[in-house]
Amino acid sequence: MDISACLGISPAGNLTIGGVDTVELAKTYKTPLYVMDEGQIRTACRDYRESIEKNYDGKGLVLYASKAFCCKEIYRIVKSEGLGADVVSAGELYTALSAGFPAENICFHGNNKTPQELEYALEEKVGYIVVDSNYELELLNRLAGEKGVTPNILFRIKPGIDAHTHKFIRTGQIDSKFGVALENGEAMEIMKQAAALPNIRVRGIHCHIGSQIFDIEPFELAAERMLGFLRDVKDQTGMQLGVVNLGGGFGIRYTQSDTPVPYGMYMEKVAEVLKNTCQKLNMPVPFVMMEPGRSIVGPAGLTLYTVGAVKEIPQVRTYVAVDGGMTDNPRYALYQAEYEAVVANRAGEPKSQTITLAGKCCESGDLLGENMLVQPVHSGDIIAVLATGAYNYSMASNYNRIPRPAVVMVRDGQAREIIHRENMRDLLHNDL
Amino acid sequence: MDISACLGISPAGNLTIGGVDTVELAKTYKTPLYVMDEGQIRTACRDYRESIEKNYDGKGLVLYASKAFCCKEIYRIVKSEGLGADVVSAGELYTALSAGFPAENICFHGNNKTPQELEYALEEKVGYIVVDSNYELELLNRLAGEKGVTPNILFRIKPGIDAHTHKFIRTGQIDSKFGVALENGEAMEIMKQAAALPNIRVRGIHCHIGSQIFDIEPFELAAERMLGFLRDVKDQTGMQLGVVNLGGGFGIRYTQSDTPVPYGMYMEKVAEVLKNTCQKLNMPVPFVMMEPGRSIVGPAGLTLYTVGAVKEIPQVRTYVAVDGGMTDNPRYALYQAEYEAVVANRAGEPKSQTITLAGKCCESGDLLGENMLVQPVHSGDIIAVLATGAYNYSMASNYNRIPRPAVVMVRDGQAREIIHRENMRDLLHNDL
Repeated sequence: MDISACLGISPAGNLTIGGVDTVELAKTYKTPLYVMDEGQIRTACRDYRESIEKNYDGKGLVLYASKAFCCKEIYRIVKSEGLGADVVSAGELYTALSAGFPAENICFHGNNKTPQELEYALEEKVGYIVVDSNYELELLNRLAGEKGVTPNILFRIKPGIDAHTHKFIRTGQIDSKFGVALENGEAMEIMKQAAALPNIRVRGIHCHIGSQIFDIEPFELAAERMLGFLRDVKDQTGMQLGVVNLGGGFGIRYTQSDTPVPYGMYMEKVAEVLKNTCQKLNMPVPFVMMEPGRSIVGPAGLTLYTVGAVKEIPQVRTYVAVDGGMTDNPRYALYQAEYEAVVANRAGEPKSQTITLAGKCCESGDLLGENMLVQPVHSGDIIAVLATGAYNYSMASNYNRIPRPAVVMVRDGQAREIIHRENMRDLLHNDL
Repeated sequence: MDISACLGISPAGNLTIGGVDTVELAKTYKTPLYVMDEGQIRTACRDYRESIEKNYDGKGLVLYASKAFCCKEIYRIVKSEGLGADVVSAGELYTALSAGFPAENICFHGNNKTPQELEYALEEKVGYIVVDSNYELELLNRLAGEKGVTPNILFRIKPGIDAHTHKFIRTGQIDSKFGVALENGEAMEIMKQAAALPNIRVRGIHCHIGSQIFDIEPFELAAERMLGFLRDVKDQTGMQLGVVNLGGGFGIRYTQSDTPVPYGMYMEKVAEVLKNTCQKLNMPVPFVMMEPGRSIVGPAGLTLYTVGAVKEIPQVRTYVAVDGGMTDNPRYALYQAEYEAVVANRAGEPKSQTITLAGKCCESGDLLGENMLVQPVHSGDIIAVLATGAYNYSMASNYNRIPRPAVVMVRDGQAREIIHRENMRDLLHNDL
């Protein structure tokens, strides 16, 4: 299938993922069910890591952006592929450490880490803390002093680049809750302030210009500006910083109309700009970090649902209701994000019906997509929504007290549960 | 305070709820923290119940719409006030029953109840199952037959009324995933079909025309149409149905610009229309059900946050970041829902600063409000976002692996926890 290399069709005409029949998975593990292909995740990790080898002689680190999909098993997988991780909360850090992830390969992000989170990160000696504001800089310097440690820090910079993507997932411009701005001198000011603080070790800078971006230019432009800033920092403060973290944001294919640039090409082009700029500015090539999340896990996942009510409203539309919805995938309700769907038990047939895929929540906005072209669909069918590996499980809720689905990992024809389905007792766990 | 009767200001100038100092609550229970006032919840319950006494001589039942805020304690409270409950999933039903809620006072809704959910509802003998489609009618009749029970059912009707509210929380019109339509004959057809089925007992009809509605007319119009339909059903099928469930949707005050009609007036006006229409159509006044959720718990709640980074971006805006966000209140991200905020430790001062209230999630859309007028605010302050009792805890997620806050109930100056804060171990509970 075009959307993802891990998908196929069995001789019986069923959708397969990683060589496993999705209709069988639905029978064994019940629905709704998240399924992810380990092979595809590992391939994406390797592609990223190899491009660091190739383009930077290994002088760099790919950090998996945990927020896309966070659980113990994913940390084990990305660790074994030689990646680091970025975390954005104590909860993600705790999950990573519980899975045996090495703290020194972790970057801790966030626009408003709490004092407790910073203390936890200091105690665990995470590799880098990405400082987001003056407030945090002072707080961290004080806490580090109290603990007698000297954390490595990067600064989150707004490079002033407006990547073309959905309004709500755009960052990097001056009107953002994240980071300090280049263009109004904020960034340089915080550098000077940091240079005088005793309990932190400034190592470099970080930026993140947005999400689900399909152009290379904004990344190139960001790389160029970041290096120019490093040069200015050296001139004005004497600090020679060696680390540039360019964040993530690489677009993936959710539907046929999405045409992402191959990641290898991104990495190569950005490396070219980085190296040329360094030469021009007469500075050494920095240690480079990248933070892909969606592009590692997104296309490797799908969600299986059982079809319940099918409502054909003449001259209006056909609603096909499934046993999940915005509770397991809030991205349509949040961003009107589009997905492709396949009738898993009829995947070999042509797509001939246009439907609106509705969830089971008591909320009109609980849809998984409108005007989706699918195979003929009936009550009892299994529907797969594709490319749900990122920002689905991680954003899931218990709205309507609906339990969160299990997550099954497949690999070379074998399946195993990596996150159990929530049960009724789980829902009441904290109720008094 | 205008937003909610349970709010006040202490002699020290701190915001109070139910006579309890919110700054003290933040100290004791930490932040973010949901706080709800039991007194206000009970008053709202009583107002609804009394209007049933007054307008219908007690021939009716107010059902608390659980999805607004679902936990064991809220069921105990609404039960003790003589209300029934509407549930929309096995999880809500399980929670209600675990709290000792009587099954016969429960109405089970949903556009796509699963076979397992229907079986559970049949086993527990819930008062009414609200059937949403032909598919469900046949499924339920079959399952009831297998179990040898005869459930009372209502049908969800789309009365064709377009209540003026946010697009995503509008229902009742023909293009909806919920119910069967009046205008194209679907509703009458399902009635005739139901009349011939042996294992169900048709009792009446249900409609729900939307959420957060501020006009009385759509409710009056809905009542009129529902009665006209009951009359037609009697003429065409011989079934004399005695129950009309008019759903919920009453608007509440989130900000000063919201001007809801007092619930008592709603109830009175709708009762007037109901009784007049019955007289005109020469039919007995049916047993009336209403399903308020938001109007019972919404204004009774608030969320307390601690302020972290304050970022003043000259000529752009001031971002005030708190220790929660879209994970505990996704309504701004979902609907751009507006709220009022108060600096709890400075509640007596005039509001003089305009801010954007940002959450701590790694997502640009993670805001709690833009252009909010508040008291002067600094890092370390406690901010209260008001009227968060509905659709906040119930829609909360663990995005970024952020634990869900605790819920504290206050009453006459006393506070008690009703839902514990999630901890790190909870987050990993189902991880393998």
